[in-house]
Amino acid sequence: MSFGIETKGVYPIAATPFRPDMSVDWDSLDRLTDFYQDAGATGITILGILGEAGKLEPEESREIAARVIARARVPVVVGVSNPSFAAMGRLAREVMDLGAAGVMIAGHAGLRSDEQIAAHFRNAVDAIGQDTPWALQDYPLTLSVVLSVPMIGRIMADHPSCVMLKAEDWPQLEKLSAIRAAQASGGMRPFSILTANGGMFLDFEPERGSDGAMTGYAFPDALVEMDRLHREGQRDAAHDLFDAHLPLIRMEQQQGVGLAVRKYLLMRRGAIACDIQRRPGTALTPRVREEIDYLLARLARKDPRAAI
Amino acid sequence: MSFGIETKGVYPIAATPFRPDMSVDWDSLDRLTDFYQDAGATGITILGILGEAGKLEPEESREIAARVIARARVPVVVGVSNPSFAAMGRLAREVMDLGAAGVMIAGHAGLRSDEQIAAHFRNAVDAIGQDTPWALQDYPLTLSVVLSVPMIGRIMADHPSCVMLKAEDWPQLEKLSAIRAAQASGGMRPFSILTANGGMFLDFEPERGSDGAMTGYAFPDALVEMDRLHREGQRDAAHDLFDAHLPLIRMEQQQGVGLAVRKYLLMRRGAIACDIQRRPGTALTPRVREEIDYLLARLARKDPRAAI
Amino acid sequence: MSFGIETKGVYPIAATPFRPDMSVDWDSLDRLTDFYQDAGATGITILGILGEAGKLEPEESREIAARVIARARVPVVVGVSNPSFAAMGRLAREVMDLGAAGVMIAGHAGLRSDEQIAAHFRNAVDAIGQDTPWALQDYPLTLSVVLSVPMIGRIMADHPSCVMLKAEDWPQLEKLSAIRAAQASGGMRPFSILTANGGMFLDFEPERGSDGAMTGYAFPDALVEMDRLHREGQRDAAHDLFDAHLPLIRMEQQQGVGLAVRKYLLMRRGAIACDIQRRPGTALTPRVREEIDYLLARLARKDPRAAI
Amino acid sequence: MSFGIETKGVYPIAATPFRPDMSVDWDSLDRLTDFYQDAGATGITILGILGEAGKLEPEESREIAARVIARARVPVVVGVSNPSFAAMGRLAREVMDLGAAGVMIAGHAGLRSDEQIAAHFRNAVDAIGQDTPWALQDYPLTLSVVLSVPMIGRIMADHPSCVMLKAEDWPQLEKLSAIRAAQASGGMRPFSILTANGGMFLDFEPERGSDGAMTGYAFPDALVEMDRLHREGQRDAAHDLFDAHLPLIRMEQQQGVGLAVRKYLLMRRGAIACDIQRRPGTALTPRVREEIDYLLARLARKDPRAAI
Repeated sequence: MSFGIETKGVYPIAATPFRPDMSVDWDSLDRLTDFYQDAGATGITILGILGEAGKLEPEESREIAARVIARARVPVVVGVSNPSFAAMGRLAREVMDLGAAGVMIAGHAGLRSDEQIAAHFRNAVDAIGQDTPWALQDYPLTLSVVLSVPMIGRIMADHPSCVMLKAEDWPQLEKLSAIRAAQASGGMRPFSILTANGGMFLDFEPERGSDGAMTGYAFPDALVEMDRLHREGQRDAAHDLFDAHLPLIRMEQQQGVGLAVRKYLLMRRGAIACDIQRRPGTALTPRVREEIDYLLARLARKDPRAAI
Repeated sequence: MSFGIETKGVYPIAATPFRPDMSVDWDSLDRLTDFYQDAGATGITILGILGEAGKLEPEESREIAARVIARARVPVVVGVSNPSFAAMGRLAREVMDLGAAGVMIAGHAGLRSDEQIAAHFRNAVDAIGQDTPWALQDYPLTLSVVLSVPMIGRIMADHPSCVMLKAEDWPQLEKLSAIRAAQASGGMRPFSILTANGGMFLDFEPERGSDGAMTGYAFPDALVEMDRLHREGQRDAAHDLFDAHLPLIRMEQQQGVGLAVRKYLLMRRGAIACDIQRRPGTALTPRVREEIDYLLARLARKDPRAAI
Repeated sequence: MSFGIETKGVYPIAATPFRPDMSVDWDSLDRLTDFYQDAGATGITILGILGEAGKLEPEESREIAARVIARARVPVVVGVSNPSFAAMGRLAREVMDLGAAGVMIAGHAGLRSDEQIAAHFRNAVDAIGQDTPWALQDYPLTLSVVLSVPMIGRIMADHPSCVMLKAEDWPQLEKLSAIRAAQASGGMRPFSILTANGGMFLDFEPERGSDGAMTGYAFPDALVEMDRLHREGQRDAAHDLFDAHLPLIRMEQQQGVGLAVRKYLLMRRGAIACDIQRRPGTALTPRVREEIDYLLARLARKDPRAAI
Repeated sequence: MSFGIETKGVYPIAATPFRPDMSVDWDSLDRLTDFYQDAGATGITILGILGEAGKLEPEESREIAARVIARARVPVVVGVSNPSFAAMGRLAREVMDLGAAGVMIAGHAGLRSDEQIAAHFRNAVDAIGQDTPWALQDYPLTLSVVLSVPMIGRIMADHPSCVMLKAEDWPQLEKLSAIRAAQASGGMRPFSILTANGGMFLDFEPERGSDGAMTGYAFPDALVEMDRLHREGQRDAAHDLFDAHLPLIRMEQQQGVGLAVRKYLLMRRGAIACDIQRRPGTALTPRVREEIDYLLARLARKDPRAAI
């Protein structure tokens, strides 16, 4: 049940299921929690961007965290990014009291120099408390904040409570190697690295030094197997499985519509009852659903998980 | 006590006063409410960007609104912009129940086409309720959303509940004339226009068709007088007063430090007890305070309001 | 040799080959021109973003255009986007005089409202001449300018000389259908649509109404075959071929490193002598080359084109 | 005739005058060069953003530089920022050969981390040559690149050929003091600082450590006198003169219309024949001209330079 610099494996980024009336679907949330655990997840991350955290009211965020933490047998990490450090700190304290293993924090588009980035994370750590373990999110494509390797080292040096990098820069592979090289030479302290980017580069990331994946692809069980194949040195088999899933991974990774695809797949797999999103969101047309169904059918020929 | 398409005069954008321990300073909030009213304000706008709305917790926003609405004898407009439409709608309903005259809504940097802008305000109006009067904020310099004159007309046509434009584009003067011309020719329906931009162009805006000002400059009494002089056709006198204040107006209008200057001036004028900001914020050095004091002393020779 | 509203097929976006001393490699440029034609391209697009157009001096741009136009037996479209409308117009006139079939024009990040977008393309068409056929580039991920479907219709209505949409929004599939539906209902005039985004969605785009592809993937011959399979209604076969290439397509589509991967593949395929980029550019490490070689070897098992 | 770390005084940013047919107005360019020198400028900066450099063709840039350099008796600094380092380097070499005193280089909105910024200026210095003296432009409001004080120190340490900071961050006053403090303590090497921002904070900048101004306000003679008054310790007199000009300074400093105002004032003062801009540009309505004329008339009561 630990979340620390040794953390490995797959931490799915959980979707937040809603009912057609846009209220939180608590039954589906339970089912989804079980789904991730049954898939072999070593942890679960909730209230991230793709968990529609920004569309929730504070009480809802709290209740969702309470529900998942109470049900999960694995560590739960909670996204607490918020324009208000006061609100960030409050949610962090509440979820840590509820038993969260840690929190996740991102920057924002307003941060345009290393000094501004450093100040942001100082303020954030002050807000969540110096002792709260946290994951640093490096996701420039969506967040528009660029963390260079030296800047990541600086944040890690400034904040011993940061235990993990959620790595989703683009390109990521060389950056992984650069960070691991810096750590090997003693220039950077150790921390866990889980990769994201929807899984788009999971075929090479473990070889480059990642400890696993933190992403929301609707087949976390396949991510777990890819990770296992890599750990066992079965490069070709890992690539075969990855290549089979790549057409769907790519559909989920599209900005603007990716979450809709993901929720549809989670619904098709029985993990949630309804794929609706709160606004602003995207509703899939029947045409898109047909395309995804077609890709699912193609995948099912190679991976029985998709035979649904 | 109305807030509608006929609204005129000065609506100060209220600061949010904090105590040195960063809690809301309720006594200062009362004093500030009185200060604005005594200055001749025809309304008060709270929880705007410069009210540090993004740094408050939801309960605090609610309590601040309740306190100001209960004390004020003029209409109170409440900023409800929020990345979550759910949270926006909830705050809007709460403050309207408390007696607010209306709400204020802005776009955000993610809106990069007229279609996206239109969708945003549709979602917003759905969230706050079709009957809630609201002001549309046009502030590209900070919000990075550009509302062309035809787009403003489209929003106004789509949403009869929008009663006011808070105009702070840059340049603003020609845009004011273009909107008023469109209204005069029947191409756009009537609505109130209050100008902002920290007051930087208040010397010409009334002649261009504005109905008054909605900005947070620390001398709202001077804004009221400028407005009166303009209404009375005393162009030279209005400019004399404006020019005397311009050095301070310009100090307040700087991104990044403007709010600190404004709060310092409000403190010097006795309207709030402490000029501290929540993080991320700016603390003035003694050097800056000396510079502002020097400008105040210079102003005092022309406007006795500054003799403090 | 036409470039018009009926244009179909594959228009590769040409790379610009350099020698190790950073001068233009004219021999490789000839070889690359032949390579695209031999691949079955129905046209060639030069001096796009991935052609490193922004890193060339004006004389170089002109000479490259002259060389490719003189050698090619298919229509050549020339990217002329430039912060200076004067420079845009001059290059457009020069390349049209040299025999270019048309030009390609994009917006830029400063365009944040439909009015600004409309003005930009009015200025551009004035600069290139009302009679010069042009392709409109819709690429928000890189250009940060968002063209809604109604806005595309407006540009097309304003400018009869625009004959093609280079479609690379994200998500693109629904947008393709929306445009084709608008055209079918008479709400939008006809024009050609070639899709880009590095080919990432080429498995579905022809079914959605695209006329082909305009993208720089290093296997244009495979793109031509995918296009043919789609036109023949061989959906499964088209997907099989697409899926085989997707791991490489994805590597090329990464912002920041994609062009380096593309040039390396073009070099491996013998189309250019050297994969160097002008600055700012990215040099591939041996590790990345090994990864691409591994993907190439995997691809070769399914597509003999990759057996190199 | 030196441009170096000891440079002081006023370097006007020159406008580029056009004829009604949009060709460069060479006679006006000569007249403008004389105007700046007669105003007491210690140098002239040409081909900056407000010189419409981005709207010129390369030959025009070269000819303008040649003309001004040949005529001027003071150092001429030439803006060479360009998306193409090749083009930047070429223009830099050409103007240095023509006798320019140095060049000016800015970043761009794509630079979002200190590493990216450092790489940009390394590439730039490689392009212009290690021996070419240059000014670093710090203008986040328009360029969207943020240079922290430590980052400025890093650029200065990396590049001994950088002799000047063109300072126009917002707020700028505290940053000036921080840089001068770092230099005083030996933490940063010496360099000249000229301030810009249209002159909006010239009333305090010299006291904070600036060596003068590099800005395009249409009354460079007034800037020279303000600078002199400050050097002589006449604080009140400097503020009196500044305050008199502030209403016009503010009109010129507006994004989007500022240059139109500036060119109109230069035309009114007889320095150029026509105030037209190349596209995209802004044409002043008669209403705006009347407003500026009114401000000019008000200014003339305090400063005879405005009696025109």
